[in-house]
Amino acid sequence: MNIEEKTIEEIAQDILSLYRQKNYVEIKKQFEEINPTDIAEIFEEFPREQSTLLFRLLPKEEAADTFVELDSETQEAIIRAFSDTELREVIDELYLDDTVDIIEEMPASIVKRILKNTDGQTRASINTLLKYPEDSAGSIMTPEFVDLKEDSTVEDAFKRIRRTGVDKETIYTCYVTDNSRHLMGVTTVKELLLHDYDDQIKDIIETNVIYVNTHDDKEEAAKLFGKYDFLALPVVDMENRLVGIITVDDAIDVLEEENTEDIHKMNAIVRTTEKPYLKIGVMETWKSRIPWLMVLMISATFTGLIITAFEDKLSALIILTSFIPMPMGTGGNCGGQASTTIIRALSLDEVDFDDIFKILWKEIRVGFVCGVSLAAVNFVKILLIDKLLLGTEGITLQVDLVISLTLLVETIFAKAVGCILPIVAKKLKFDPAVMASPFITTITDAISLLIYFWLATAILHI
Amino acid sequence: MNIEEKTIEEIAQDILSLYRQKNYVEIKKQFEEINPTDIAEIFEEFPREQSTLLFRLLPKEEAADTFVELDSETQEAIIRAFSDTELREVIDELYLDDTVDIIEEMPASIVKRILKNTDGQTRASINTLLKYPEDSAGSIMTPEFVDLKEDSTVEDAFKRIRRTGVDKETIYTCYVTDNSRHLMGVTTVKELLLHDYDDQIKDIIETNVIYVNTHDDKEEAAKLFGKYDFLALPVVDMENRLVGIITVDDAIDVLEEENTEDIHKMNAIVRTTEKPYLKIGVMETWKSRIPWLMVLMISATFTGLIITAFEDKLSALIILTSFIPMPMGTGGNCGGQASTTIIRALSLDEVDFDDIFKILWKEIRVGFVCGVSLAAVNFVKILLIDKLLLGTEGITLQVDLVISLTLLVETIFAKAVGCILPIVAKKLKFDPAVMASPFITTITDAISLLIYFWLATAILHI
Repeated sequence: MNIEEKTIEEIAQDILSLYRQKNYVEIKKQFEEINPTDIAEIFEEFPREQSTLLFRLLPKEEAADTFVELDSETQEAIIRAFSDTELREVIDELYLDDTVDIIEEMPASIVKRILKNTDGQTRASINTLLKYPEDSAGSIMTPEFVDLKEDSTVEDAFKRIRRTGVDKETIYTCYVTDNSRHLMGVTTVKELLLHDYDDQIKDIIETNVIYVNTHDDKEEAAKLFGKYDFLALPVVDMENRLVGIITVDDAIDVLEEENTEDIHKMNAIVRTTEKPYLKIGVMETWKSRIPWLMVLMISATFTGLIITAFEDKLSALIILTSFIPMPMGTGGNCGGQASTTIIRALSLDEVDFDDIFKILWKEIRVGFVCGVSLAAVNFVKILLIDKLLLGTEGITLQVDLVISLTLLVETIFAKAVGCILPIVAKKLKFDPAVMASPFITTITDAISLLIYFWLATAILHI
Repeated sequence: MNIEEKTIEEIAQDILSLYRQKNYVEIKKQFEEINPTDIAEIFEEFPREQSTLLFRLLPKEEAADTFVELDSETQEAIIRAFSDTELREVIDELYLDDTVDIIEEMPASIVKRILKNTDGQTRASINTLLKYPEDSAGSIMTPEFVDLKEDSTVEDAFKRIRRTGVDKETIYTCYVTDNSRHLMGVTTVKELLLHDYDDQIKDIIETNVIYVNTHDDKEEAAKLFGKYDFLALPVVDMENRLVGIITVDDAIDVLEEENTEDIHKMNAIVRTTEKPYLKIGVMETWKSRIPWLMVLMISATFTGLIITAFEDKLSALIILTSFIPMPMGTGGNCGGQASTTIIRALSLDEVDFDDIFKILWKEIRVGFVCGVSLAAVNFVKILLIDKLLLGTEGITLQVDLVISLTLLVETIFAKAVGCILPIVAKKLKFDPAVMASPFITTITDAISLLIYFWLATAILHI
């Protein structure tokens, strides 16, 4: 099956019409052929009050996998309709980290019911996981992993994996700990498969293990997957005991989520929820957008002040007013390009604070060549288009020179400001992503205007 | 080992001083304890002409893994210094897709030497892989995967994995094909381990396989990993024959690369290279930034024209000039927020063209509440700060009303334009990421000015 959006929607339509005909047997048969992720998408096309009935048509082995993929409102509706036995059946099949993710979205009454229907040990694990801070590595780990004994053989290891592996999210990375649960080493099922059955685990394991702490940032943990090509990453607690692992699928989710957050921040949006666009209400959207709009609107008071200060000169030569937006826009774009590039390079660990002078020097040179190109093209464009073609009044060679020189000088300034601010922000432990276009533009607007008016005063003697 | 940037740099310093003391034995010992990815970072601290000597100090089993992680200039330098035997040793250890990635960056003479030192079959595979278009799924796949026979048992499967697995990048997903190499089903080592040795493969395999075609977009392929939590994804050719697999580590790289490209595009940068920031020269940076700067600068001619058209009114009431930048900036920010949100939602497949009216209706309502908030705060702010505190001349209640109403109306327009353009762009097969802040701002600038001047004409009777 080659998955295309179209296909899923078509299948959903088929199942909807089977549902209307009450042909549940056929729905059951179809569900067996569909990936749980896609079944969850099909659920979205159904009215929520029918999701429990639909859920009961799922083959047992797909029920839990599908449940995890549903949106939390549908999960809640299904749990409410569940008997305790049904609830226990699904919870038993879930991996612990998924159970915790679900619990975090549920109202207190549902949480209580879920906890009531888990055994004591699971409940304790859930409570521990719930306590990790939201952005921590601990919050995305699962405590279920394969642990092997140092003094066992490859054959023992396979026996152990066969016995305990069914409940683990991944079995491909196996961990060896000592009696106080300190991490001694790791190995992989691939390594095990390439060794003889009577080889000793202690001769196979890699003892230089890269790990993270439960309280490390989950984004930093996720980045290690891209860097080292891991399938799983061990997580230790404050006493250096192995308490869980992060799996690559969760790392991908974190990376995508952090990318979304960065992209939003870089465009003056405060991210308040991880919900998809269409599920976010108007007021919640307003809440995420209004803070920066307000800050940026009020800080634009400065540009107003600058123009007011030069009001006399503007009324002396009214043509200067027409050209206010263009250099301001260009300054914003130049600064935005520089800050974007640096914010992304910081986030990919390509540059750090020590590179600040190297970066500044490069951006100044880039600003110079960009500025010269823009100024040259603009100089000709104003003469040909604005003066000759459009016949705009008041354009002289001197006016043209003021505007073109403004472009050259402001471009260098904008590139410099744009590259410096994110690096400094990171050094001061602020999020560099905030130092992107909208914020940089407010600064370059003021700089551009000042350069413009100063050059006008100097060259046009007004 | 808990990896921190600091640690790697410190280790690099240690190794540098060992190198100066010619204590190669100790370097060898240290290298054994370090992950190949980190060794590659240490290489970056060394002068390039010494990298071959350093490379020869690597333990055999880490040499190829380290080689893959080096930058292409260092790889080239090392290959040039290699004897044919040394070259063959490294190439033999590389996975085919990595060999192809390396070859793509090398000059023709080196490519010839590499191909001369591979056997006929490998050479044929390399040549096939090199032919896939740059952005295709085929270009990131590896032809080395574990294939199982349908009529064999779990025990046979393990024997086969043990015999052939050493050369495969991943062994955890296994594929069953028929005699004409059509994909029949997949299974995982986890499934195999949880079944009895004498179970039949054909009873275990999942026959509803999600796959991609060699010519599908690699980004679309990579997204499937996030959606379905795959470790590997099969790739079929035009005749539906299984020709390779994509592994999750390569999918993560593609996702991060595509995110970087999107972020750059959204800020008017044309991405011309995948090199890290500090390795890109000034002129190459210029080339990636100047196209959009030029386009946006020239299109700002329109805003100039609008101001020119209203010149008389501006000279009649000069205070209006001071307030030109603020509504323009706010319009750009509002439009940028909307376009960013939609571009990201499109890229995450959260919305598509069919949602256009739902999205527009939501953005208009968001625009209304944002606009009302901004207008109200601005109305009070102009009276309190600009008029009372700063004593700016010429501010009347009517002028304040014009500016505040402009904010309200333009915010709604900006949100509408900002959300519509990316969706339409995608429908017309353009990249929606281009419809971000810089482009939207150029449009909202013109819209904001028109609204401003019209309201001024209507309310102030100028």
